Amino acid sequence: MKPFNKYFDHTCLKPEATSSDIKKLCAEARKHDFYSVCVNGCYVKLAAGELSDSDVKVAAVIGFPLGAVSPEVKVLETNDCCANGASEIDMVINVGALKEGRYDYVIDDIAGVVSCADDYDAIVKVIIETCLLTDDEIIKACELSVSAGAEFVKTSTGFAGGGAEARHIELMRRTVGNLAQIKASGGIRSYAACKEMIAAGADRIGASASVQIMEEYLKENL
Amino acid sequence: MKPFNKYFDHTCLKPEATSSDIKKLCAEARKHDFYSVCVNGCYVKLAAGELSDSDVKVAAVIGFPLGAVSPEVKVLETNDCCANGASEIDMVINVGALKEGRYDYVIDDIAGVVSCADDYDAIVKVIIETCLLTDDEIIKACELSVSAGAEFVKTSTGFAGGGAEARHIELMRRTVGNLAQIKASGGIRSYAACKEMIAAGADRIGASASVQIMEEYLKENL
Repeated sequence: MKPFNKYFDHTCLKPEATSSDIKKLCAEARKHDFYSVCVNGCYVKLAAGELSDSDVKVAAVIGFPLGAVSPEVKVLETNDCCANGASEIDMVINVGALKEGRYDYVIDDIAGVVSCADDYDAIVKVIIETCLLTDDEIIKACELSVSAGAEFVKTSTGFAGGGAEARHIELMRRTVGNLAQIKASGGIRSYAACKEMIAAGADRIGASASVQIMEEYLKENL
Repeated sequence: MKPFNKYFDHTCLKPEATSSDIKKLCAEARKHDFYSVCVNGCYVKLAAGELSDSDVKVAAVIGFPLGAVSPEVKVLETNDCCANGASEIDMVINVGALKEGRYDYVIDDIAGVVSCADDYDAIVKVIIETCLLTDDEIIKACELSVSAGAEFVKTSTGFAGGGAEARHIELMRRTVGNLAQIKASGGIRSYAACKEMIAAGADRIGASASVQIMEEYLKENL
């Protein structure tokens, strides 16, 4: 099993975040050797600079948090973030198209981002926004993401009124099997919550409370 | 004074909106002869098609709702939306850069969108997200928007936990004078609220409840 700290995409996506906030995020990620920092597009270059001599990666969000920019814009945005140093792309699925059954559109929307990210050896996570979906829609979103070549399915943006739930992680795991990894995100604020998500099948955790969670973890495991 | 219906940007920005929702939005806008419909980028082309033989315009949101994509991406997104038929661009200011005092960045971020929109004779509204700002920051955001060539300042995305307030509209009006128009948006659900916003200085109203508001208005004014 990988070290607990390597589960974390240490995350700061609030609109009022300043460059000081992002520098602090990067310093924390470096200190705890998290897997990555997850930031908005405008901070990818800054984060990549701050982390250039570390093995902490930069993840960028795309079409975030509504998933409702055009497929063309998602590709342009992916290209911009990868060129600025992102090696992980957390894109939001087009929820409306999914609900409407426009599956070719949903696949193309994801595949365009995957193809662009491939040019930079970046991987793609598809945020399916579980809190807006029925169980059948969650299954379909996972299937389409895998078909389109995404490496991960991810539960939540954290901006749609609901976050990661263990029963959704279990459903996603049953659906994707070993064909994709799973990221739990949204409202994960404790070590107990992380253990629950990992037991349910999560390979990665997105959290802004990663530092406090690590402190809880170290207290329990020393 | 312009007809009441012409105050409205009839709005549907929820991530789960389907093309049926957007067609309904356009039909309602046509029926009530609203000023525009306001939609996410993925629905600009559809809305422009639905409204091609009417004088209802299409407004597209950019960098929405966090305002935290890179300046380059805001321009690419503006270009995509204008090419697809948007003649109004509602962009979100970079809130973090504003709070940090990086005013040149904020101006350039807006000016890039204005310059691209100009190529299509489209106008630009800058969403300053008043609920995240102090009064001094609201004043500064208005000044920077005017300096950068925006036609409108707009209160809110509706996604940041707070909406339009009359005292903010008054402050924005005192700041911009006649150099820009003002759009009130976020949580406006009644004719009474609209009257309050217009009395405070609003030139445009963004609402998803525009149809119910028009019905209230017609009941009171017949």
